[in-house]
Amino acid sequence: MSERFFLATPPGAGHALLEGDEARHLSRVLRAKVGDEVRVFDGSGVEWPATVAAIRRDEVAVDLGEPLQSVEAKLARLTLAVALPKGDRQKWLVEKLTELGVARLLPLVTERGVAEATDSARARMERGVVEACKQCGRNRLMEIAEPLTLEALAAGFPAAVRLIAHPGSATALAGRIGDPDQEILAAVGPEGGFSADEIAAAVAAGFTPVGLGPQILRVETAAIALAARLVMAPE
Amino acid sequence: MSERFFLATPPGAGHALLEGDEARHLSRVLRAKVGDEVRVFDGSGVEWPATVAAIRRDEVAVDLGEPLQSVEAKLARLTLAVALPKGDRQKWLVEKLTELGVARLLPLVTERGVAEATDSARARMERGVVEACKQCGRNRLMEIAEPLTLEALAAGFPAAVRLIAHPGSATALAGRIGDPDQEILAAVGPEGGFSADEIAAAVAAGFTPVGLGPQILRVETAAIALAARLVMAPE
Repeated sequence: MSERFFLATPPGAGHALLEGDEARHLSRVLRAKVGDEVRVFDGSGVEWPATVAAIRRDEVAVDLGEPLQSVEAKLARLTLAVALPKGDRQKWLVEKLTELGVARLLPLVTERGVAEATDSARARMERGVVEACKQCGRNRLMEIAEPLTLEALAAGFPAAVRLIAHPGSATALAGRIGDPDQEILAAVGPEGGFSADEIAAAVAAGFTPVGLGPQILRVETAAIALAARLVMAPE
Repeated sequence: MSERFFLATPPGAGHALLEGDEARHLSRVLRAKVGDEVRVFDGSGVEWPATVAAIRRDEVAVDLGEPLQSVEAKLARLTLAVALPKGDRQKWLVEKLTELGVARLLPLVTERGVAEATDSARARMERGVVEACKQCGRNRLMEIAEPLTLEALAAGFPAAVRLIAHPGSATALAGRIGDPDQEILAAVGPEGGFSADEIAAAVAAGFTPVGLGPQILRVETAAIALAARLVMAPE
């Protein structure tokens, strides 16, 4: 069974418990039996081969093999601060950024933003992160950070490289920026764009405006394009 | 009225007709009147400011101003040959590749492919291209090419740079490849990956396998990531 299962609770020494939907999916949908081999991860960057040890109502106990260290530590640490789109576009944004290896998605509170990062929206996004991680083989969860305004972000987030997507900017995003171990922070505004005040304040705070080509990209497209260009570090 | 309308029929000298849904959207939903200003494009790379001259049943006649040349000619000519995903993932693929400036999407026929590029699927994708162009300001349509196998593609498509996405490849995609005026061809396989035979044949035909990071990307994610890295040429 090559499917991956998420451990909501970090494992003890050599043992772990699958709970809730993860346990039910394994025991009822896939009809696992004691002795079956699966793979599990706890979102901290490690994966284990595991053997089903016991199947109980709503939980499955597994014995863990040797942990496999993830290669994700080699990737640039990218935080994308995004004025969230709504509905399916938000769901896609989370899935794609998780697949592409973005470290952290920070809901950006902007003048023209449309979607609020309520607690339930953040919980839904966190479930999306787990689902995407299971599917794409990523072992460290993408963090869904607390929402911030651009001002609070500029004051409180000490990234070495700070970029702000702004259509028509003279600076194009050419190749990789910074070293693999530098923190990169990139901000993407709402459908109507950042206001002139927001851009001016960001530039004053050390953000470099970058253009992403001649088309007006949707919010999720701009964020995904930045992730594709900034995370995937050439060796 | 800043909305953009698509001309299914190329304009004559100084005049054009909006037809079908485009005409009905303008006249009935937006309740345009004679004299209103709009913007129109015919998918060949040009946009015109236009003035509504007459509103008839199911068509709107417009007078055209001076054509605005598009900046898209400066972008790398990228053809993405993709083993199409199904449903919403296919729809998203088309929207995002159009926004990112991909020149041509070619449905790739592979051993493990799941979606067929039937005539109705291609017509649906072409409608998706027009919708995305209207929204993102792109004036040249992304072409939906005839489906080909990898073998036929290798034999019949004379691109200067040929890439094939293959998880685990030693070559990472670092920065821009080729000159802005070179044709680039990049192939993306189905969810289950290319077969070993397909990869071997592609390499024999001059394709370079490229990796896109440690995660296993979904088809549409791999295609979008390639587009983000290959189309947006730094000045």
